[in-house]
Amino acid sequence: APDVTMLEVCIDSALSAINAEEGGAGRLELCANLFEGGTTPTTGTLRVIKKHVKTPVFVMIRPRGGDFLYDDLEMETMLEDARQLKDAGADGFVFGFLTKDGRVDRARCSAVFDVVKPKPTTFHRAFDVVCDPSGALEDIIELGFSRLLTSGLASSALEGAPAIHRLVQQAGDRIVIMPGGGITEKNLERILSLTGAKEFHCSARKSVASGMTHLSSDVYMGAALRPPEYGHKVCDSKRVLAFATFAKAATFK
Amino acid sequence: APDVTMLEVCIDSALSAINAEEGGAGRLELCANLFEGGTTPTTGTLRVIKKHVKTPVFVMIRPRGGDFLYDDLEMETMLEDARQLKDAGADGFVFGFLTKDGRVDRARCSAVFDVVKPKPTTFHRAFDVVCDPSGALEDIIELGFSRLLTSGLASSALEGAPAIHRLVQQAGDRIVIMPGGGITEKNLERILSLTGAKEFHCSARKSVASGMTHLSSDVYMGAALRPPEYGHKVCDSKRVLAFATFAKAATFK
Amino acid sequence: APDVTMLEVCIDSALSAINAEEGGAGRLELCANLFEGGTTPTTGTLRVIKKHVKTPVFVMIRPRGGDFLYDDLEMETMLEDARQLKDAGADGFVFGFLTKDGRVDRARCSAVFDVVKPKPTTFHRAFDVVCDPSGALEDIIELGFSRLLTSGLASSALEGAPAIHRLVQQAGDRIVIMPGGGITEKNLERILSLTGAKEFHCSARKSVASGMTHLSSDVYMGAALRPPEYGHKVCDSKRVLAFATFAKAATFK
Amino acid sequence: APDVTMLEVCIDSALSAINAEEGGAGRLELCANLFEGGTTPTTGTLRVIKKHVKTPVFVMIRPRGGDFLYDDLEMETMLEDARQLKDAGADGFVFGFLTKDGRVDRARCSAVFDVVKPKPTTFHRAFDVVCDPSGALEDIIELGFSRLLTSGLASSALEGAPAIHRLVQQAGDRIVIMPGGGITEKNLERILSLTGAKEFHCSARKSVASGMTHLSSDVYMGAALRPPEYGHKVCDSKRVLAFATFAKAATFK
Repeated sequence: APDVTMLEVCIDSALSAINAEEGGAGRLELCANLFEGGTTPTTGTLRVIKKHVKTPVFVMIRPRGGDFLYDDLEMETMLEDARQLKDAGADGFVFGFLTKDGRVDRARCSAVFDVVKPKPTTFHRAFDVVCDPSGALEDIIELGFSRLLTSGLASSALEGAPAIHRLVQQAGDRIVIMPGGGITEKNLERILSLTGAKEFHCSARKSVASGMTHLSSDVYMGAALRPPEYGHKVCDSKRVLAFATFAKAATFK
Repeated sequence: APDVTMLEVCIDSALSAINAEEGGAGRLELCANLFEGGTTPTTGTLRVIKKHVKTPVFVMIRPRGGDFLYDDLEMETMLEDARQLKDAGADGFVFGFLTKDGRVDRARCSAVFDVVKPKPTTFHRAFDVVCDPSGALEDIIELGFSRLLTSGLASSALEGAPAIHRLVQQAGDRIVIMPGGGITEKNLERILSLTGAKEFHCSARKSVASGMTHLSSDVYMGAALRPPEYGHKVCDSKRVLAFATFAKAATFK
Repeated sequence: APDVTMLEVCIDSALSAINAEEGGAGRLELCANLFEGGTTPTTGTLRVIKKHVKTPVFVMIRPRGGDFLYDDLEMETMLEDARQLKDAGADGFVFGFLTKDGRVDRARCSAVFDVVKPKPTTFHRAFDVVCDPSGALEDIIELGFSRLLTSGLASSALEGAPAIHRLVQQAGDRIVIMPGGGITEKNLERILSLTGAKEFHCSARKSVASGMTHLSSDVYMGAALRPPEYGHKVCDSKRVLAFATFAKAATFK
Repeated sequence: APDVTMLEVCIDSALSAINAEEGGAGRLELCANLFEGGTTPTTGTLRVIKKHVKTPVFVMIRPRGGDFLYDDLEMETMLEDARQLKDAGADGFVFGFLTKDGRVDRARCSAVFDVVKPKPTTFHRAFDVVCDPSGALEDIIELGFSRLLTSGLASSALEGAPAIHRLVQQAGDRIVIMPGGGITEKNLERILSLTGAKEFHCSARKSVASGMTHLSSDVYMGAALRPPEYGHKVCDSKRVLAFATFAKAATFK
């Protein structure tokens, strides 16, 4: 019976790294700015973590949130950060680049490989917005990535489990397919059963209240998200028709 | 082979009602303020919808977002709204009340029944935060609700599908269990197969751009959501241990 | 010395209405869905409020968040809601319509006047996104509105105070200019001094914790706001130049 | 006549640094994660920026969003990042630490001074949530900070302008008081006039659409903000009374 061989935990601080190791993580993925899906961490964070844990630490190379189409300055920044983080002890690297039409940008991936080799590499969830997943997986394998982190082109690994299963089958022994995205203690068993994956990626975080006794309620440091002022949502009869058509045809085995 | 007998579409405007009917909806659930999960709509919206569609319209009775524990003024408001909406032609009512310890508030449910009978009633997703789902379902059946809208005590119907399946089995022919919460064209088949439900609830919306040619970028009408200023998240070693323990034990059939 | 003659408080529930009256509000503006800037409230809310307070209650007529360009079904809904709310005891009405090029839609405003007369009327913050504020104010006066609620075409009344001052001067005795938008106990004096306004609009809310003792952390009822996946922000050299140019020229009196 | 001597522009990428210099910025403040108010940037970003611009670059030292009370691992991380960024060419440092009761944490500030000296230092908007602003300013001066970035203990520099003015007067020539927080081309003149400040801090950003032609609408990489499920807002009669009391007393000079 196949079993799970690796639990990767996503962390953004030294305390989280220590906690993840204590809980039994097999690998750490170090990011900054998890709110926007993870960006390149600082070398200071990595250096302090490497002093406190023995678990391998893979680092995210991503200069900002948003899409995976970068300008030359962003590429220059990522290559420099990869060098700095390699010097600081990174055990592996997590990155991914797309062309504007949604394909794997092989040239840019190769440029990072030149810096980070021979460290192992993970192609990240940029994969989840490619136009041709099957072809993209072949590109990622040929480029030499060690693994692919994916939610199966869906909003969560549970939603994308059928697609992840197909990727696991296509991949065979050529690359590790690692599900990630909304994995919790409650849905892990289902995701593993549905996908056949042997590694998985989770964040396992809890909220920690501030230790401040002096609280100020008027001041905000950052930005905010607002509903759109121009645009709204309406029911789409085509979507309803798709639901209705399916519902009429539904028979359960 | 059992098949799906009813597609309920959640709408918040007359245009959405018309679109939902055109697409083949079997029932409409009319709400205001879908961003906060749906609140009581206006009688004007209902009256206009009843002029334009023949599909039955069930109306939400919920005075605000947030929890399902209400003060007396909120109850008085809901009862008055139920009367007004019944006069305006509502074909059914959707509501639900909890006690502070997470049980169905039977007295308050009965008070609404007194107003809306003999119209059919749906107990809404307040169910998804009860403390004892099995007992709550029995309460809801005894109270005389026609159906229960639920995501299976999870963040979406797909996540909660195993729990919904158990509710379907417990319910038998006594009440309709209607899955809802994040149902899309992509996950519908899985949700129906996993749960055995014969009705389902979805919103099927698309974004519509504003028709304004004069756009102003400086002004916001409403409020905004911000990251917390006091508190942050860290990796929890207990949650990692739960993942790791499970992963070690995992074997797939 | 001129003084403030009217404090209007924006509320969305009977409890808030009672609290506002107790605190000394001179007028209430009743809305639903304050998160999106206020939409049409239910007749049930209005009827319960009218039983509990003596303060005049003006009601918002706005069918959704977003822009102020409506389709015919939305207009039909607003007219019907205005009728229903007038029957339910509304003391005044708050509304506003724009054409797609950012002018006051006089025909649509007149259609609402036909329903709500002789009740007093407020043109709401749709004004803050018009293309020609001075011309729009003349339109609003000619249409017969009793007052204009405005943040001075800015994100808050403090930001827009200079523009509000100009509106107060243009208006003279012809219409009441009522500042609103982010007014707090801390900035009220400055806003009144800067604008010369004699009425003002505020919400004066506090957060109330849930009374639930059974809390569920996994389930969300509504939607969420997310950072954009396609698009990001960069520093704009033209904006910096505007700042730099101004800074070089700055001399303070 | 005093005039503005310095325009600091907050940036988070090499492109923004180049744009800011082109527009005439006198100093750059480099951060990551502006959504949460700015955190420590990577050395890669700094090194690339130093290759492309001549304008001095000050770097933020802040390991996460939220409060300014840090654990020992976070302090260790900040000290290490300060060393790395100093090596990478930082021209100045921006940081700030508080004790849990809202005072300046002098010991922790000194620890960073030991690493970054003799580079100039800015105490950041942690100041805006201290309990005793006047005392905190004296602490900051004594510690040897070159300047204080502040919104005047308010949500924006315009809201806090009266407090900033008092700080400018208290500071005299001992430290530069630099307003920041929501400064735009529209409110800059008022803020400078009201505060008497000679430096100011802004971000001057514009939104840039993605260059992707293949768009995926189902997948999100990061987290989301949601309205609270437990808790809501009601009108506070005490706040209304405060408004009403003030309004009654208002006379304008």
